[in-house]
Amino acid sequence: MPAYNDEIFNTNIEQNVLPKLAVFEADTPPVVPQIKKSRKMDSQKFRSELIKNIDTFIFDADGVLWLGENAIPGSSSFIEHVAELGKRIIVLTNNATKSRAVYAKKLAGLGYGRYINEHNIVNPAAVVADLIHRSDLARQDKKVYLIGSQGVKDELKLLNIEYFGDGIDPVDAQPASKGQAFLYELELEEHPENVGAVVVGYEKYFNYLKLMKAANYLQNEDCLFLATNEDETCPGPNPETIIPDAGPLVAAVKTACGREPLTVGKPNTPAFDYICRRWGVDSIDPQRTLMVGDRVNTDVKFGRDHGLRTLLVLSGCHGLDDIEDGILQSREDLVPEFYADSLGALIPTKEKVNKKKTKAEEGEQRRKAVCV
Amino acid sequence: MPAYNDEIFNTNIEQNVLPKLAVFEADTPPVVPQIKKSRKMDSQKFRSELIKNIDTFIFDADGVLWLGENAIPGSSSFIEHVAELGKRIIVLTNNATKSRAVYAKKLAGLGYGRYINEHNIVNPAAVVADLIHRSDLARQDKKVYLIGSQGVKDELKLLNIEYFGDGIDPVDAQPASKGQAFLYELELEEHPENVGAVVVGYEKYFNYLKLMKAANYLQNEDCLFLATNEDETCPGPNPETIIPDAGPLVAAVKTACGREPLTVGKPNTPAFDYICRRWGVDSIDPQRTLMVGDRVNTDVKFGRDHGLRTLLVLSGCHGLDDIEDGILQSREDLVPEFYADSLGALIPTKEKVNKKKTKAEEGEQRRKAVCV
Repeated sequence: MPAYNDEIFNTNIEQNVLPKLAVFEADTPPVVPQIKKSRKMDSQKFRSELIKNIDTFIFDADGVLWLGENAIPGSSSFIEHVAELGKRIIVLTNNATKSRAVYAKKLAGLGYGRYINEHNIVNPAAVVADLIHRSDLARQDKKVYLIGSQGVKDELKLLNIEYFGDGIDPVDAQPASKGQAFLYELELEEHPENVGAVVVGYEKYFNYLKLMKAANYLQNEDCLFLATNEDETCPGPNPETIIPDAGPLVAAVKTACGREPLTVGKPNTPAFDYICRRWGVDSIDPQRTLMVGDRVNTDVKFGRDHGLRTLLVLSGCHGLDDIEDGILQSREDLVPEFYADSLGALIPTKEKVNKKKTKAEEGEQRRKAVCV
Repeated sequence: MPAYNDEIFNTNIEQNVLPKLAVFEADTPPVVPQIKKSRKMDSQKFRSELIKNIDTFIFDADGVLWLGENAIPGSSSFIEHVAELGKRIIVLTNNATKSRAVYAKKLAGLGYGRYINEHNIVNPAAVVADLIHRSDLARQDKKVYLIGSQGVKDELKLLNIEYFGDGIDPVDAQPASKGQAFLYELELEEHPENVGAVVVGYEKYFNYLKLMKAANYLQNEDCLFLATNEDETCPGPNPETIIPDAGPLVAAVKTACGREPLTVGKPNTPAFDYICRRWGVDSIDPQRTLMVGDRVNTDVKFGRDHGLRTLLVLSGCHGLDDIEDGILQSREDLVPEFYADSLGALIPTKEKVNKKKTKAEEGEQRRKAVCV
């Protein structure tokens, strides 16, 4: 499918007719739930129709504000534009490798420092720490077994939550590993009764021993099973390199322990609850909040599941074919209300729009290789 | 539910009435597929009704012949009994940590040497090696990236298949790991075009780097994705210790690469095809073959899916409550035709039967803790 096929992605919602699904018999009228098509958003429509109805913008970071180590051209200007109109800016990422403070530094280095700082960034590390802080774990003097990176450690420390298990932990340090294929005995740092939660996120030192420890701590039904996010892969600067994210690690622990985690990152509700608590539930009106992201299964689904308005930018992972997949599968939760080439394409300046459209087209080719 | 509830597990199949499912409205007649209940098998019925109709016995090993490092009492006598009646004996295990030759030694050490040797043992290591041997990989001079244990290595070597990647492979050996949370670059031992298959099985040295390498090799669509087995956990001598098996590792690789593996172990077809090729397809009559195992989701399903007759022994992982679950879920593929306390309970000698029943009852308590 061409990237900008207006026959399918018609800007006039009412005139759209769903393509006939081949799975139905020709003589049986197909029963297709009516899913509203995504509407293409440009700078003119954004200014005349949308922005007046939005108070809060929630932006995903990777693929929306930056890609790898570089800012996406135009995104910074867009943030400034809406911030200067008095709109609230929240950045909600699924990346838990950095704390909010470290994220803020990265964003400042990419030119976003004026309107984004650690106070309007939300990441799963902060949400998971907040969730544990509000549970009884701390009062019960229980610890957290952590498979996770620096971001989670920093956020747990901020709330004085005791954790252990992160970092290098070679399987051969276990006496039972010697000369045996399977570890029939396991030496644990803590008695399972002292472990109140197992947190699983991305960690490059994840290994079989950590998997086994997590599964054994989770045999205690009172032990919480929390995951930062379940993204399968993380986009990187080299589109040919697949970088597994937290999703595969969470899948391994789930399979070993036979339990489902409470996953706090997008598209799940703990991240939304956190935002409502942080900014005040009366202050966040879902119908006047726009979720802007580059992935249908995390960002768009997060918006749809929580009653927000949704905009997919094509400068990151997902594209028009992903929207079309959602429509064909009758998955309204994966179909954004709007899509745009990039944030830059929504700035009301003619020359910027043209410039950004070219960039977005480049991005469209690149993302095909980056995303799996 | 009591372990031996004859009200539910009635030995008279015809009189059984399925319990009414609570999910249906009271005034709507439930449409419940008629699943035949499992029939309890004892030594008398086994001798008078079943054995004359069976030519080939396929035995699972763990939980049927042994548990941990000990033989299950009575199982060896049962094997001798049916072997001396001229029946064919095949041992089909899902454990790929040992080659068939090493398994044969273990079985000999436990008293099974008379009728079981490497020539009538089948394990996923042998099946996966055979599958690769019969593919074009060897002729194309392609290699196998292996996440797996000694058993797979031995079986691949036997067929002169070149593999690499097994053993310790620390993530920090990668230059890109230094100072970075994510590995944005990956140094691979082989160019992906030279890798014809990724094999994933249980390996205690599994880690994030191996996951990442597997996912990257599997980006090449021509690269086969094979798994030995997908058992979630492996039973061990200490019922309180959860030992993750290959299942969690396969789940991680699947999630990272977005592909489904061809899994050769039970309940999948490659293991059955292997048996048919090895013993001659005309020589294996499914209706005269009895699959004996201790797990409904691997052994019983393997038998049901391939038209074999099925017997669950209660001396290992699964019990009557698992059979009942299968019935309530209308999963005929998880409900065995027969069940017995243990193999020993089927030997036609009164004193042995009584002795074994006590052992089986002990086992019933133990398995509750061993299996998840």
